[in-house]
Amino acid sequence: MSNILGNLITLTVFGESHGPCIGGVLDGLPAGLAVDESYIAHYMEQRKAVSALSTPRREADVPQFVSGVRNGRSEGTPLTFMIPNTGTRSSDYDALAGIARPGHADYTAQAKYNGYQDARGGGHFSGRLTAVYVAAGSVLRKALEDRGILIGSHICDLCGIKDMAADQDDLSAEIRRLNDMDFAVLDSEAAEKMKDRILRAREDRDSVGGVLETFITGLEPGVGEPLFGSIESEISRAVFSVGGVKGIEFGSGFDMAHMTGSEANDSFAIRDGRVITLTNHNGGINGGISNGMPVIFRTVIKPTPSIGKAQKTVNFITEEEKEIEIGGRHDPAIIHRARVVIDSLAALVIADQLCMRHGREWLIR
Amino acid sequence: MSNILGNLITLTVFGESHGPCIGGVLDGLPAGLAVDESYIAHYMEQRKAVSALSTPRREADVPQFVSGVRNGRSEGTPLTFMIPNTGTRSSDYDALAGIARPGHADYTAQAKYNGYQDARGGGHFSGRLTAVYVAAGSVLRKALEDRGILIGSHICDLCGIKDMAADQDDLSAEIRRLNDMDFAVLDSEAAEKMKDRILRAREDRDSVGGVLETFITGLEPGVGEPLFGSIESEISRAVFSVGGVKGIEFGSGFDMAHMTGSEANDSFAIRDGRVITLTNHNGGINGGISNGMPVIFRTVIKPTPSIGKAQKTVNFITEEEKEIEIGGRHDPAIIHRARVVIDSLAALVIADQLCMRHGREWLIR
Amino acid sequence: MSNILGNLITLTVFGESHGPCIGGVLDGLPAGLAVDESYIAHYMEQRKAVSALSTPRREADVPQFVSGVRNGRSEGTPLTFMIPNTGTRSSDYDALAGIARPGHADYTAQAKYNGYQDARGGGHFSGRLTAVYVAAGSVLRKALEDRGILIGSHICDLCGIKDMAADQDDLSAEIRRLNDMDFAVLDSEAAEKMKDRILRAREDRDSVGGVLETFITGLEPGVGEPLFGSIESEISRAVFSVGGVKGIEFGSGFDMAHMTGSEANDSFAIRDGRVITLTNHNGGINGGISNGMPVIFRTVIKPTPSIGKAQKTVNFITEEEKEIEIGGRHDPAIIHRARVVIDSLAALVIADQLCMRHGREWLIR
Amino acid sequence: MSNILGNLITLTVFGESHGPCIGGVLDGLPAGLAVDESYIAHYMEQRKAVSALSTPRREADVPQFVSGVRNGRSEGTPLTFMIPNTGTRSSDYDALAGIARPGHADYTAQAKYNGYQDARGGGHFSGRLTAVYVAAGSVLRKALEDRGILIGSHICDLCGIKDMAADQDDLSAEIRRLNDMDFAVLDSEAAEKMKDRILRAREDRDSVGGVLETFITGLEPGVGEPLFGSIESEISRAVFSVGGVKGIEFGSGFDMAHMTGSEANDSFAIRDGRVITLTNHNGGINGGISNGMPVIFRTVIKPTPSIGKAQKTVNFITEEEKEIEIGGRHDPAIIHRARVVIDSLAALVIADQLCMRHGREWLIR
Repeated sequence: MSNILGNLITLTVFGESHGPCIGGVLDGLPAGLAVDESYIAHYMEQRKAVSALSTPRREADVPQFVSGVRNGRSEGTPLTFMIPNTGTRSSDYDALAGIARPGHADYTAQAKYNGYQDARGGGHFSGRLTAVYVAAGSVLRKALEDRGILIGSHICDLCGIKDMAADQDDLSAEIRRLNDMDFAVLDSEAAEKMKDRILRAREDRDSVGGVLETFITGLEPGVGEPLFGSIESEISRAVFSVGGVKGIEFGSGFDMAHMTGSEANDSFAIRDGRVITLTNHNGGINGGISNGMPVIFRTVIKPTPSIGKAQKTVNFITEEEKEIEIGGRHDPAIIHRARVVIDSLAALVIADQLCMRHGREWLIR
Repeated sequence: MSNILGNLITLTVFGESHGPCIGGVLDGLPAGLAVDESYIAHYMEQRKAVSALSTPRREADVPQFVSGVRNGRSEGTPLTFMIPNTGTRSSDYDALAGIARPGHADYTAQAKYNGYQDARGGGHFSGRLTAVYVAAGSVLRKALEDRGILIGSHICDLCGIKDMAADQDDLSAEIRRLNDMDFAVLDSEAAEKMKDRILRAREDRDSVGGVLETFITGLEPGVGEPLFGSIESEISRAVFSVGGVKGIEFGSGFDMAHMTGSEANDSFAIRDGRVITLTNHNGGINGGISNGMPVIFRTVIKPTPSIGKAQKTVNFITEEEKEIEIGGRHDPAIIHRARVVIDSLAALVIADQLCMRHGREWLIR
Repeated sequence: MSNILGNLITLTVFGESHGPCIGGVLDGLPAGLAVDESYIAHYMEQRKAVSALSTPRREADVPQFVSGVRNGRSEGTPLTFMIPNTGTRSSDYDALAGIARPGHADYTAQAKYNGYQDARGGGHFSGRLTAVYVAAGSVLRKALEDRGILIGSHICDLCGIKDMAADQDDLSAEIRRLNDMDFAVLDSEAAEKMKDRILRAREDRDSVGGVLETFITGLEPGVGEPLFGSIESEISRAVFSVGGVKGIEFGSGFDMAHMTGSEANDSFAIRDGRVITLTNHNGGINGGISNGMPVIFRTVIKPTPSIGKAQKTVNFITEEEKEIEIGGRHDPAIIHRARVVIDSLAALVIADQLCMRHGREWLIR
Repeated sequence: MSNILGNLITLTVFGESHGPCIGGVLDGLPAGLAVDESYIAHYMEQRKAVSALSTPRREADVPQFVSGVRNGRSEGTPLTFMIPNTGTRSSDYDALAGIARPGHADYTAQAKYNGYQDARGGGHFSGRLTAVYVAAGSVLRKALEDRGILIGSHICDLCGIKDMAADQDDLSAEIRRLNDMDFAVLDSEAAEKMKDRILRAREDRDSVGGVLETFITGLEPGVGEPLFGSIESEISRAVFSVGGVKGIEFGSGFDMAHMTGSEANDSFAIRDGRVITLTNHNGGINGGISNGMPVIFRTVIKPTPSIGKAQKTVNFITEEEKEIEIGGRHDPAIIHRARVVIDSLAALVIADQLCMRHGREWLIR
């Protein structure tokens, strides 16, 4: 069930970049959950291509609901939506038949599907599919927000340009601030430098990647399941469905390789009658289960593989080596668009975990 | 189904550190698959505590098969095994009732299970459960090996002490070399330094972590499923079930944040009639599907949370702050024991993926 | 995952009777599988309302494929289709707000979804959803047929009017004959009597049910999984998703309550070098696994609950008892339309079971 | 995942009839659920062979818990138990190597597992595995009982000998009465006749089957999921895992083939402020969802296939036809032992459905 995410709340994802539409079936929602189209639109907007930083391909990306919702409330039965593919220019891909674009899934799709795959624009492997995550995830994100659970991300590193650290003492306020931003960087100077770096990549007909840091606040202790249902297992399974993600770390992550136990262990303490930890190297998770501290993780987004620069590759149909320069309309960076995708996947996972604990009705209680 | 891994080949995991036994139910195997107890024993040995580098707790750790196998061959029905817990000294934990050991799941288990959990030695969250992964994973690892697919890991970084890079031109030979080692480090000088560092941590009543690098060779292109069934999704879901894992990256991973697309993209070429890539920044995976190059990933193992040094914490029953020094028998490092755990989980995932592609019978063909 | 059927080949079902469309996502197909629209149309036709025997509601019911298929071949990625709801006359249901139609899911949907459900025409519980099964099932039915596995049903009993028994010596020919019929009854005299009985029910503003007998020929021995994955478990799970099905029996089924072991046991024998059974009381299945004989099962379809006759019921909003006469356009019987639904579900289940055994590629080999 | 039942509450089943033990892993329980060994023992006793009506094979059948339970309460982590196979006399099966016992899974297991299966006593397909269902199901049955949900069955038909109908006006009292009986028949005269019939079958070296009728009372309206998660789908999937079950019907079941809609529809009415139905032809279920009336279903149990009488069969190894008389110790009927198996499976399904609705914690609230 590789195109299905979740346990009690499930999302079935379908579509190809250059087909008539992409879409999703979101099932397991309690009846009566608010489906707030303007809320969803706000986050769909964050994922859209904006300004010179992104591809000139422009699409309205308004999910069209065809089942499971009426008058702004879920019906309880499968909620299905389509997002039409209006901005496709498949002719851009005509010249690419049989060409394995480096860094893309063209060759692996060929190896798997023997030429039957829709190769145009990456087909089912296109980043465009992430619009489905945002539409579905926003439904749950709203429900979580209404229950005091906030999710947000910033670009913490782009080609070595670092954002400032978020204020751990008021992380929820930081998240709210980020969720209103188009370009999610806390330090406005760093933001400008990052944008400049992206524009330079564009001029170079090249691209850049970066690291997103995601925060979840307001999560009670005790959420998550043992072993393969750990928060880390479920979030990582979700985010690695995004083609550009090549790594994830929780809390201090890879830095823990250089720490001792006495440094890495988070001491527990009691504040205002609540158990807290004095540091948060474990990213709010012990043994896969939330400990009540903010959940923190970082995902690395690789540089957009579609670049204009000449690249060596092969034509896997003619079995010849080739040099290509990818035409079409592409993003010099996707990280600023990817953050809402990661947030949305986190919302789907956390809502599912909470429903496994408390039942689906918890989402509307 | 949080204690169950896999799709066609499934592993159900059970047990607690200080109960009578731990064990697993491995289902979905084709009938007639070799279950080679000496092969399994070799890898169980790698996970065991050895020498001064590890806990003095010693257990035979011989899986006792109670169903699904006869005369060294799987029967096709669920293969079940128990591993008795013979070395338990639960008295070590008597003084710890209600104490949240920093870095452990004691507090989160309490939050989730309200005091009904078996807290001794971490209970179901104990690293001891990973012996189940090794026993089950070795069954599949052997089957993969017999079909030319090798899996192996080395400690590539321990507190800043780096191992040499593996020879990418003969990675299968490197894997074979590693799989014969007790302490999986390619550079013997680095190995000595790492061991010294571990022993120093032990003297300090402290602990250290590190990074494991895992290689899978011989995997055909086209393996893996789209989106949530990607190789990256499935491997990450599996390895994050290990309490000590706090991050994973594939190929160049987090370094990709500092690369451009033209650097990060792996150019395709044709060698001996086969499509290859000239570099392997994507770790053998494009769009979640194998491309025929070695699969490479790194996992960070945090420093063992059980340390003798004094630590601040709380008693969550009495709701008081406390200072503790953890007695009992503990590991100053677990990374050298963890590598076979990661290898075993990778074997379970890859075998499952191949069976989804070719059917279960492929494993015995 | 209640709206999802299958293990390796999965069908996600969505939609409501009076929404814009119903549809399905069929996933796990091998790439390159023929998707033959005229073949599908043939079976969609069988499910459609025809003549005076059925509701005057008429819909084209041509599945519109929006992903996963091109040039008549599956792409390997999720195959999605919509079936527009063009014949809806929701005004028929205006007077029914809060009214629990006896025999329908109106009240149980209310109890489950608290008024948020789409109640028009049964919403997600409408028999209309079975069109999705037929569209998806026909894709697999064709693949099975091409591999020598035939599926077909006849109405064996309608209000006590019995069809003749199928010729067990050439069951495949009988199936082919049935699959070409609009009204699937082997004995043409019985067929006329059944039609008369249906028309009489219509005049009475009442309805009738009956029993379908389904045959599957050409299935090799050894298909099916132990325990909950038995052929009987999987087929029954599938067919009970149809609201009108209230019972299923395999082979001699309930008659076995009146037989002795020596009568009910099917003796094995060898014919032409193949193991066969001399009788087939077990319906081709022993221990949940196929034995190579035809699989035979019967499902009872209850009388259509929508009838014109006055009935006692309640308005669950006003909490008052009421008398109703259901207007709208209804079927005096659905059994002749239901048979292709049962066939299609059987095709989905058997194809999934075969893929678990041989891998998905088996379907195109 | 064919040996795994359930969604939120899962049971993994393992073992063979003549291996060291059979057992189960029951996962997804809330922590703190009572695991009452004397309650379990009561129901294990009902399944055991008793008196001349059953096989002389006698086993203690006391589940030995090896994980997940302490001091009579679930820990929340996987609850695992073994039931030792102490009464095995494998020598009884030596003469049967390669012999397909008619009505058994010997031949189909051979076709599926190619000779690697444990064929002794049916191996994994043995009715002995149902002891696992009873042990696990009793844990949930107790929890349901404590919340006012009762489950019980009687033998309503054995070779044409019918039990009296249960008193629908006080079905809960009838269930309590049945649950205290060894031989679950309401009418004591019918009970004696049935026992005589079983003894006669024994003398004839033959066997008999029958029909069980199962009642579930106290179930609120709104339980069950749409389509493939319907109560009927889930219960039928569960009960068809029992080798002897060849049919199931809900409510009036197959009799509905002879009814009109006006007869079969259950009129709704209001009594004491609650919606009820005046009849219960639909067995408490509309559209797969409970309507608050008792859930009623019947399962047919075929005559025990192991009989002493001479039977024709084949040796599938030598590929010869053979005549056999099965020695060993067998049951002339299993229906009186099967009823607690069906009850237990129903308890597992209903508990799982309620947890999907209300969350796991509902079971201990």
